[in-house]
Amino acid sequence: MKKIVECVPNFSEGIDTEKIEKIASTFRNRKAVKLLDIQKDGDHNRSVMTVVGEPEPLKEAVIAAVGKAIDLIDMRSHKGQHPRMGAVDVIPFIPIKNVVMEDAIALSKETAKVVWEKYKLPVFLYEASATSPERQNLANVRKGQFEGMPKKLKTPEWKPDFGERKIHPTAGVVAVGARMPLVAFNVNLDTNNIEIANAIAKTVRYVSGGLRYCKAMGVELKERGITQVSMNMTDFTKTPLYRAFELVRIEAKRYGVNVVGSEIVGLVPMGAMVDTAAYYMGLENFSTEQVLEARIME
Amino acid sequence: MKKIVECVPNFSEGIDTEKIEKIASTFRNRKAVKLLDIQKDGDHNRSVMTVVGEPEPLKEAVIAAVGKAIDLIDMRSHKGQHPRMGAVDVIPFIPIKNVVMEDAIALSKETAKVVWEKYKLPVFLYEASATSPERQNLANVRKGQFEGMPKKLKTPEWKPDFGERKIHPTAGVVAVGARMPLVAFNVNLDTNNIEIANAIAKTVRYVSGGLRYCKAMGVELKERGITQVSMNMTDFTKTPLYRAFELVRIEAKRYGVNVVGSEIVGLVPMGAMVDTAAYYMGLENFSTEQVLEARIME
Repeated sequence: MKKIVECVPNFSEGIDTEKIEKIASTFRNRKAVKLLDIQKDGDHNRSVMTVVGEPEPLKEAVIAAVGKAIDLIDMRSHKGQHPRMGAVDVIPFIPIKNVVMEDAIALSKETAKVVWEKYKLPVFLYEASATSPERQNLANVRKGQFEGMPKKLKTPEWKPDFGERKIHPTAGVVAVGARMPLVAFNVNLDTNNIEIANAIAKTVRYVSGGLRYCKAMGVELKERGITQVSMNMTDFTKTPLYRAFELVRIEAKRYGVNVVGSEIVGLVPMGAMVDTAAYYMGLENFSTEQVLEARIME
Repeated sequence: MKKIVECVPNFSEGIDTEKIEKIASTFRNRKAVKLLDIQKDGDHNRSVMTVVGEPEPLKEAVIAAVGKAIDLIDMRSHKGQHPRMGAVDVIPFIPIKNVVMEDAIALSKETAKVVWEKYKLPVFLYEASATSPERQNLANVRKGQFEGMPKKLKTPEWKPDFGERKIHPTAGVVAVGARMPLVAFNVNLDTNNIEIANAIAKTVRYVSGGLRYCKAMGVELKERGITQVSMNMTDFTKTPLYRAFELVRIEAKRYGVNVVGSEIVGLVPMGAMVDTAAYYMGLENFSTEQVLEARIME
């Protein structure tokens, strides 16, 4: 059975399409690797590429892309609204098919080692690959950004996991790690009151007492005159979409507010949709192996 | 984008595993063809194979399998509980990905032509490939079975679509056609009263006023002391699973009966599960192109 891992590297270039294409081209025309998506953001001056592949070929492609990004991006002149600390800012590996989190962690560490040895780019391991609790959260790792990194790397707590206490002069540092697939899932409410949306978001999200693998905040959809609970589902295998959806509905009730729809932004693993269908129809003994496309992919 | 068609040929051999394996082996080790499943039934003395592939390679594999079945199966000595009229009883082609029904129909007709020319096995086109309304329904075509076919073929209405008015001496005749994927979907009721299950089945099925692409009957699950509405969903793209599920629930209410679960038997296309999840969460603007696995398969 073929193993499939996803990788979503973030590059600090969102404007120069020629440079972006040169980086993207390192993922093209490779056996057992497929570039699924490129999201360029000019304001952020950042591109997010979604790549899938078998573990080894994917690792090689990612390493090639890092080399290309180091050649093309000079962080000393980089400006953009999104926090960033390197030419390649972050490289998460995500288990998709016939691989477990441990495989993705191993892959992230192998990649990190090569990135340091080959390019002298220091690496922090983050999320499931982190070597200490404070390195799990990317925001902690990235705090200080490119400009603050030379000083940060000299503090006792922030020695890189691979590399010395000195940034790459033009490419800074990179965070490499492993995580579950993220699903961007928003539930729409028939109120224009953002305070209600925020209050509901607070009840469903992990940090304030809600679901373990759910981040949430209220968002206004001004042109429609409604609001939404905008969620990041960080592990749909443990906190399924339907559970967050039903909880939003239940919490909305106390404000006399109704759920009027939802949306998934970007890609979603098949399992998240199958789990949801199985829940609502009370499917007994159902396995994703029964999904025709899953069988074809094997 | 790769085109994928499914084919589910039924062979009149369900006991002799060596013969079954010889037929199955015609589908193995072929480029762009994959044997997903073999269901052998000894009482029926019949095997159902599920194969997927790109149109041309799939056609060639199916033609090879027909040849092998003709070599190995002699209908003059065939006994089994399931109605049958040939060594290969029926060959449906099913559009799965990047193909439409018209493509599956064309493929079924090309296959039928070769089967006649190469093996002198007469063919009736059925379902979406049928050349007259009375040939759409397989039961009509097969009526009389192997033993009655010599006489049936001589009647004005039953000239084969390919071939002469004379059966293949040992292999009989075959029905070749195109149809949508079938989903075997059963909804469980908390009553042991089969009359209630039958009454509900009657309300949801097409023939008695229900949903256009739904066949249904009541079934007892004796060991659990419950019943179920056992359905064949014949086109989930037009009659989705959730609609049948909700209708069963609504009709059950008048008997004070509750739906206590459901099951899908065998394979189900991803689209059927995605549609169902999208319905229950009121997903706006969702496309199966957002499903990661669908993107990987492209």
